[in-house]
Amino acid sequence: MKAVCLLSGGMDSSTLAYLAKHEGYEILALHFTYGQRTEDKERECAHLIARNLNALEFLDVDLAYLKRVGASSLTDPNITVKSHEKAGGGIPQTYVPFRNANLLSVATSFAEAKGADAIYIGVQASDYSGYPDCKPEFIDAFQQVITLGTRPDSGIVLKTPFVRLNKAEILRMGMNMEVPYEDTWSCYSENDVACGVCGSCHFRLEAFRQIGVQDPIPYR
Amino acid sequence: MKAVCLLSGGMDSSTLAYLAKHEGYEILALHFTYGQRTEDKERECAHLIARNLNALEFLDVDLAYLKRVGASSLTDPNITVKSHEKAGGGIPQTYVPFRNANLLSVATSFAEAKGADAIYIGVQASDYSGYPDCKPEFIDAFQQVITLGTRPDSGIVLKTPFVRLNKAEILRMGMNMEVPYEDTWSCYSENDVACGVCGSCHFRLEAFRQIGVQDPIPYR
Repeated sequence: MKAVCLLSGGMDSSTLAYLAKHEGYEILALHFTYGQRTEDKERECAHLIARNLNALEFLDVDLAYLKRVGASSLTDPNITVKSHEKAGGGIPQTYVPFRNANLLSVATSFAEAKGADAIYIGVQASDYSGYPDCKPEFIDAFQQVITLGTRPDSGIVLKTPFVRLNKAEILRMGMNMEVPYEDTWSCYSENDVACGVCGSCHFRLEAFRQIGVQDPIPYR
Repeated sequence: MKAVCLLSGGMDSSTLAYLAKHEGYEILALHFTYGQRTEDKERECAHLIARNLNALEFLDVDLAYLKRVGASSLTDPNITVKSHEKAGGGIPQTYVPFRNANLLSVATSFAEAKGADAIYIGVQASDYSGYPDCKPEFIDAFQQVITLGTRPDSGIVLKTPFVRLNKAEILRMGMNMEVPYEDTWSCYSENDVACGVCGSCHFRLEAFRQIGVQDPIPYR
């Protein structure tokens, strides 16, 4: 059995790839860059994780057009990444329009071409208050698109094992699988020493605090 | 009103862009290259059509990863493009896995970022015998993904005005709108003088024959 795993190099997607391996799949790692500030660091971490798991392939896909489409602080250098506290409610400023559909479309093409059985994506509960393309209904609708839009015998299943979990639960699962979190990166803002204040750092640190473990990466 | 129009530079998508303009939309042209043999010629034609229609924007997106994913004669130089007669039944050899979902995901990101009201894609009856991602059920499922995966107020509508038409009917509509077919390209194989024998040339020539008009582009 083979599974395409969306592997950003962050804490969740790295745990996800370990989980797919534990569930019996050989890994086809799929990494994206789309002009995010920390793309080199993320790619480096994704490679480390893929190597640890003896991934069959590592496909690095540049979705730079998402930068040209604009309208997100993750990719637009003219918008400052806000700290978690200043971000407020509503759809987060880091939202890239319809990003997950773009990622899942690539994943499905890759899966169909390689005869993979499943696609793993790490969308989760702590995201879907804000991002419309992280909601379970969105995932269900995309499964339907996969079923209708691929060869009748492809049988590709979209797996979202983290959708009902919070970050601390994911982390606890990962600690049990001995995921090397020192080889992962979450900060949206910095490449060497994590900022500790962006939304992504905030949620990562909180998860480590909740399970009573020290995060092994350096913080400012 | 603004509409993202998928504009390959071919006969159908050029007619589609003219139709969107006739239906009252300002045009946001979206062109893709994905390592097809005739990409320069197609881009040149798409630019000519967009200019004729005073398009607000022309976004040229490179989906080169579809080439790396492989498994199609359109993008893999190791597979010869078969003539129409030799192709036989089943899913065509020119099938790029899940291509239309990739194209529509980009289109939706572009549409949401620019506040567009609609997306026009030229999928049609003569395709959906073979390509799973041209079927009306696929389009309906993708509309659901758009509705669920974009901001609640985006209201983006996916328009497929050609889905029940054949190529001759599309061409007749285009002749009425004075689409400059000399500025369009359909051949999958050649860049200067169309081969006349690939599937795409075959269907184009047949459409011109059916409406009794001479195709203005040169053939071998």
